[in-house]
Amino acid sequence: MKNPSLYLERLIRELAKLPGIGPKSASRLAFHVLSMQQDDVDRLTNALVDVKTHITRCSVCGGISEGDVCPICRDDMREKDVLCVVKEAKDVLTIEATGEFHGKYHVLHGLISPLDGIGPDDLNIKPLLQRCRDGSVREIILALNPTVEGDATALYLAGLLGPSGILVTRIAYGLPVGSDLEFSDSATIARSIECRIKL
Amino acid sequence: MKNPSLYLERLIRELAKLPGIGPKSASRLAFHVLSMQQDDVDRLTNALVDVKTHITRCSVCGGISEGDVCPICRDDMREKDVLCVVKEAKDVLTIEATGEFHGKYHVLHGLISPLDGIGPDDLNIKPLLQRCRDGSVREIILALNPTVEGDATALYLAGLLGPSGILVTRIAYGLPVGSDLEFSDSATIARSIECRIKL
Repeated sequence: MKNPSLYLERLIRELAKLPGIGPKSASRLAFHVLSMQQDDVDRLTNALVDVKTHITRCSVCGGISEGDVCPICRDDMREKDVLCVVKEAKDVLTIEATGEFHGKYHVLHGLISPLDGIGPDDLNIKPLLQRCRDGSVREIILALNPTVEGDATALYLAGLLGPSGILVTRIAYGLPVGSDLEFSDSATIARSIECRIKL
Repeated sequence: MKNPSLYLERLIRELAKLPGIGPKSASRLAFHVLSMQQDDVDRLTNALVDVKTHITRCSVCGGISEGDVCPICRDDMREKDVLCVVKEAKDVLTIEATGEFHGKYHVLHGLISPLDGIGPDDLNIKPLLQRCRDGSVREIILALNPTVEGDATALYLAGLLGPSGILVTRIAYGLPVGSDLEFSDSATIARSIECRIKL
């Protein structure tokens, strides 16, 4: 394949490195960039540069922040006594999108995964214990993925936090709303029977 | 949804403007950018800037080029007497990827589409007639999409070029290789019967 421009070839190569973008999508995107207004391309590149320049990790929860402490941790209107523990910073946005949680967050930056060589010391767990030490936290909700790694991390944290007297809960796993028993996998159905609730 | 960073929100918004990227993909990409090495982000932004700065339209075929004339038009090893007419610059790359065509190209930058207010004068047609004037072109292959607009443009060009004595052909439309009659739409099957060839 003879590409008429090395610059275009390089852009396609760089775009194809992004997750979920294959060579065909990368090529389509690169040609789209060619047809974009200069202003729009400038806005995109500035946005890319700014994100790397201005965003750091919140010193309290480990989520993303533009300053030392993120807006959620600084927000006095939110409940201080409930912490929601998530795997990654983007999980915070996913939960915020529901509008159902009004407490604060703690980001682990990963899950315990012995196969990948990730142990508890590689995660943001020590600062979580620190936050629980002053008695202001009443409940910790573990919102981790229903995977082997998620289960292992949840059990580990429950063990660590047990003696503190803090209520440790985890989000419910079961049938997604609007789904059908017929099309659900048996592991999910088994989990939903195991975690059944009294009506 | 409370986004902890306006910079991140802006990047998500800019990414979501790209074709084929919805809000969820844009969010995933933005978080990926956050976790990328600074070098990789620099390479991506430089590639975006360079493409807009260095790529222009080839003065001969209308395809993309880094100089006045693109490498394909400059290539003396390619057949000069066969022109392949395509809708967009990226179609050149798609055809080049097959390695089956060794002539030169001409990019129309659109198709005739009265509903969208696009007439023949809005397309790169006059330079095509200019290229055909000196008698060096023997055949013009129309490689346009099998759509109403593609058909209209093909008929229009065939009418224009008819008197010149140049052979005007168009690529075959029919069943894709490896497909199954059972799963092909009836318009495609009708076209493949209409365009049947003698064995």
